[in-house]
Amino acid sequence: MATVKLLSDDELSLEARAVFDDIRKVRKSDFVNNFWRALAHDPKTLRRTWESPKEVMAPGALDPKVKEMLYVAVSIAHGCSYCIHSHTAAARAKGMTEAEYGELLAIVGMASETNRLVTALGVPVDQAFLADAAD
Amino acid sequence: MATVKLLSDDELSLEARAVFDDIRKVRKSDFVNNFWRALAHDPKTLRRTWESPKEVMAPGALDPKVKEMLYVAVSIAHGCSYCIHSHTAAARAKGMTEAEYGELLAIVGMASETNRLVTALGVPVDQAFLADAAD
Amino acid sequence: MATVKLLSDDELSLEARAVFDDIRKVRKSDFVNNFWRALAHDPKTLRRTWESPKEVMAPGALDPKVKEMLYVAVSIAHGCSYCIHSHTAAARAKGMTEAEYGELLAIVGMASETNRLVTALGVPVDQAFLADAAD
Amino acid sequence: MATVKLLSDDELSLEARAVFDDIRKVRKSDFVNNFWRALAHDPKTLRRTWESPKEVMAPGALDPKVKEMLYVAVSIAHGCSYCIHSHTAAARAKGMTEAEYGELLAIVGMASETNRLVTALGVPVDQAFLADAAD
Amino acid sequence: MATVKLLSDDELSLEARAVFDDIRKVRKSDFVNNFWRALAHDPKTLRRTWESPKEVMAPGALDPKVKEMLYVAVSIAHGCSYCIHSHTAAARAKGMTEAEYGELLAIVGMASETNRLVTALGVPVDQAFLADAAD
Amino acid sequence: MATVKLLSDDELSLEARAVFDDIRKVRKSDFVNNFWRALAHDPKTLRRTWESPKEVMAPGALDPKVKEMLYVAVSIAHGCSYCIHSHTAAARAKGMTEAEYGELLAIVGMASETNRLVTALGVPVDQAFLADAAD
Repeated sequence: MATVKLLSDDELSLEARAVFDDIRKVRKSDFVNNFWRALAHDPKTLRRTWESPKEVMAPGALDPKVKEMLYVAVSIAHGCSYCIHSHTAAARAKGMTEAEYGELLAIVGMASETNRLVTALGVPVDQAFLADAAD
Repeated sequence: MATVKLLSDDELSLEARAVFDDIRKVRKSDFVNNFWRALAHDPKTLRRTWESPKEVMAPGALDPKVKEMLYVAVSIAHGCSYCIHSHTAAARAKGMTEAEYGELLAIVGMASETNRLVTALGVPVDQAFLADAAD
Repeated sequence: MATVKLLSDDELSLEARAVFDDIRKVRKSDFVNNFWRALAHDPKTLRRTWESPKEVMAPGALDPKVKEMLYVAVSIAHGCSYCIHSHTAAARAKGMTEAEYGELLAIVGMASETNRLVTALGVPVDQAFLADAAD
Repeated sequence: MATVKLLSDDELSLEARAVFDDIRKVRKSDFVNNFWRALAHDPKTLRRTWESPKEVMAPGALDPKVKEMLYVAVSIAHGCSYCIHSHTAAARAKGMTEAEYGELLAIVGMASETNRLVTALGVPVDQAFLADAAD
Repeated sequence: MATVKLLSDDELSLEARAVFDDIRKVRKSDFVNNFWRALAHDPKTLRRTWESPKEVMAPGALDPKVKEMLYVAVSIAHGCSYCIHSHTAAARAKGMTEAEYGELLAIVGMASETNRLVTALGVPVDQAFLADAAD
Repeated sequence: MATVKLLSDDELSLEARAVFDDIRKVRKSDFVNNFWRALAHDPKTLRRTWESPKEVMAPGALDPKVKEMLYVAVSIAHGCSYCIHSHTAAARAKGMTEAEYGELLAIVGMASETNRLVTALGVPVDQAFLADAAD
């Protein structure tokens, strides 16, 4: 039910193929998932969009597993079923245990509840939290 | 601009006071932030709502700092300014470095972009991600 | 911090004034709140937008108080602070008790939590719920 | 397309079974819907999550039918298809007429429109609504 | 998986049929899409809901193609798959090129990212933007 | 009420200063708005985030004014007040008339209403829209 045709490797423009090659190289895997096949109609957006995970998900201050879990949390809040599935799979592949997954779900659920309660009540930010930010 | 008056300690019902006592004991701090003071009009919801962070944010499989960062990520996606401020402060208090905060922001921003692109394109979930879930 | 100037009664076009007159007549009050003063720059949208509450909030199958509570629930989920304040005030004016308000908040919070958990888990709809819809 | 396997009664841990028993007892029905079967992998979250509807949806100040309608309204705003189906079915089972359902839909639609218009225009909250809240 | 039966032409009430006749006349097409067939159970909401696109999508200051593209952008942000499909098709029918569609997607993605970053950081509105609004 | 200090020109790192220089050059204006001053703590994200509008908002298939209007539409749906103000100002600066702004608001409001009605009713996508996409 996509709004565009998913492109197979044979249907890629030269520019899109170069991005696919880089995805394969960076991820050390031949598998290129459907998101990139849908984006491949527009090589410029494909390239720019790929630059983000390439940079942001690379080794850094946070554990790669934690990065995927943050990705899942945001995807749940935005209701993106595809992203939930792909990044839950990625988090598991990077070592997320079922206990950790359970805590992730519990936090996302709880935060959703308190986010809405706070919004409903129009709670003003405590001075203590502002002071903290001003440090 | 709250829809209810924030209750001071003097204005609490006996039931609400018992919850405040527990918050202070668990958090080892005398400070009770405005969220609980707004909820305190309804001791039943106050108590039930407090049971969640008491259980979910307690030591477990995930680092307490990571838990707060997940909380922040969800709060951003839901646009809850109060929650963003309170949990960013909490994450910092639990050791989140500025480098880690930068990566958190980068992931939330990027996930928001790809979440919407995937939704726009109606990308079907890859078999590989489903297979993973079916294990 | 509005993107347009709020129009006072003196600044209204003839068409906008006619809508204001109708708002005052239907609501049996001289008070016209800021939302309509912001919309008044575009009399066509002002008129069309006013037709909705005029029809939808009129006496019908549901208690007027319940209608306002549904309005508040949606406004919380959408994070519209103005709407939360105006319709919480309206619900109170139409008889919402503090006990009812407490239950409204509890349901909105709980639904937010379960909504996100269901989305996170990708739970398939039970046959029983579909059967119900097919009746 | 769930991220976890739905557990049948035979696959439940002792702790999860105890929660299922309570769901059946409170709801006076043998049917346990898929949401709980997905949550059952994590008995702690299953139990805590079940405590909420058990307490919040119990007889109180609001009509049970109205409670379900508020649940539906929030679920629509959050785009949770499963929750929309399950709670629309529940509201009907608790007596929601088609006329009431029509009014619910009309209010959710209208509120969504005005929520976004207010947000777009950045309308400041009227003193009258604040005064009301301060009472 | 609808919560109501989609009504065929034969099942319409007289009032609903009159709205369908108007849809066909205004759109100069015999095709009436499923949205209206789901709404047709409630002729009052059907009629009121139809009044909006009839007025708003009519020739005006903006190019009809641009109007559909704005509709698509909002539908993506709200995660409405049906609306994304129907209005992407409508935008194409009204002349949206693939280059324009690519730019629409790029803007929606980018805006989603910056929206969340701004919210995360709690950036205060610049005086320059307020001054502009006050003109 | 930001979670970070807004950096003045004097406080920028060399890397951040280079991005500010580029923003000033591309926009042909000395003014650098608060968003970039908040992001400037993390030069890598600052640079990557700036690459997007630099590329996406550059002259292309769509009128620059239309691009800003799409940006505004998404920002409204996401409830980002800062973004609404900055891009409404930008759209006006690029020639958006008040009549066009009125139509933008009308479309965003209407789409929000129909998005939620469609979601509430679970309307299945018409074959015609899928056929269109498959072309």
